[in-house]
Amino acid sequence: MKLLEDRIKSDGVVIGTEILKVGAFLNQQMDVALFREMGREWRKLYDGETVTKILTVEASGIAIACMAAEAFGDCPVVFAKKTKTRNVAGDVYSASVYSFTHMVMNEVIVPKEYLQPGDRVLIIDDFLANGEALRGLISIVKESGAALVGCGIAIEKTFQPGGASLREEGIRIESLAKIRAMSEDTGIVFEK
Amino acid sequence: MKLLEDRIKSDGVVIGTEILKVGAFLNQQMDVALFREMGREWRKLYDGETVTKILTVEASGIAIACMAAEAFGDCPVVFAKKTKTRNVAGDVYSASVYSFTHMVMNEVIVPKEYLQPGDRVLIIDDFLANGEALRGLISIVKESGAALVGCGIAIEKTFQPGGASLREEGIRIESLAKIRAMSEDTGIVFEK
Repeated sequence: MKLLEDRIKSDGVVIGTEILKVGAFLNQQMDVALFREMGREWRKLYDGETVTKILTVEASGIAIACMAAEAFGDCPVVFAKKTKTRNVAGDVYSASVYSFTHMVMNEVIVPKEYLQPGDRVLIIDDFLANGEALRGLISIVKESGAALVGCGIAIEKTFQPGGASLREEGIRIESLAKIRAMSEDTGIVFEK
Repeated sequence: MKLLEDRIKSDGVVIGTEILKVGAFLNQQMDVALFREMGREWRKLYDGETVTKILTVEASGIAIACMAAEAFGDCPVVFAKKTKTRNVAGDVYSASVYSFTHMVMNEVIVPKEYLQPGDRVLIIDDFLANGEALRGLISIVKESGAALVGCGIAIEKTFQPGGASLREEGIRIESLAKIRAMSEDTGIVFEK
């Protein structure tokens, strides 16, 4: 998606060869108009597919998922929480997810009442690199008995193994910007 | 706002006399069409006020803030993070916030580059009870030199002291549903 690639080039900051900071427009300061366009792009890519629910994970996936929901008929958006809170009681689906960014293991949980066997779920998240978070969300969808339509990712780092490995397993993933390589010196190279 | 009050009555769950669970539509499963209407309501309430930026705090404020941004000309939305992450370096505004829900003290932080002295900020959050989170966000806005237009709250528990105390200090707060009292037996009583 050229709009997103251009924005990454103009406002993203590469640190080393693995970290891309996009806090200026994607995951701390958020350009909601851009997210709305991203939603329309996923809607086109998943043309013909019924989506009854969008699933994401806190915190930075929430904004993109909610703005994208407009293109999917304002379907409900559910986010997985990373820790149990006093207000979440009862039965939950859960999965363990290792965060390479924070170097900790998180439990991600979704109350069972928000994912039903009749649902057709699109998973949306900001980044795909090692695929840990996505695997956790996919396992939650499978556990719920809902159908997984596929995944919508804003930025995929194709030089990391998550996307290739999940596609080999038959998971459909539509990433709007695919980064093949990046470095502070040479900048960002997108997949063609 | 009748739309929100009706939704709280139909889908909210009161536990004891202090906890209101609205995970079904507000802060875990999210009704984005409702949030869009809430944004329009805040836009009416703040009629004539220029808003250049919306500030909220992760996680449950993000969705409401982003959907509300549409009514404010798709202005950028910034969320305060609750802990430092590896990707957030450099200068940040910060405030200490006590969470009564989780019974812990959090540091909330916003990178300085996302709040400027020229900004006119609307703070949006899901709940106002003791006002701790809101106080943290307000102090961050003041520290940044930006102008605070006011606060937009989805649900205020007026039987807890946060709102009254902040209004006494001259902070403008527009809450779309104000709960005067609630209990499992008698249900929810809204302010008139």
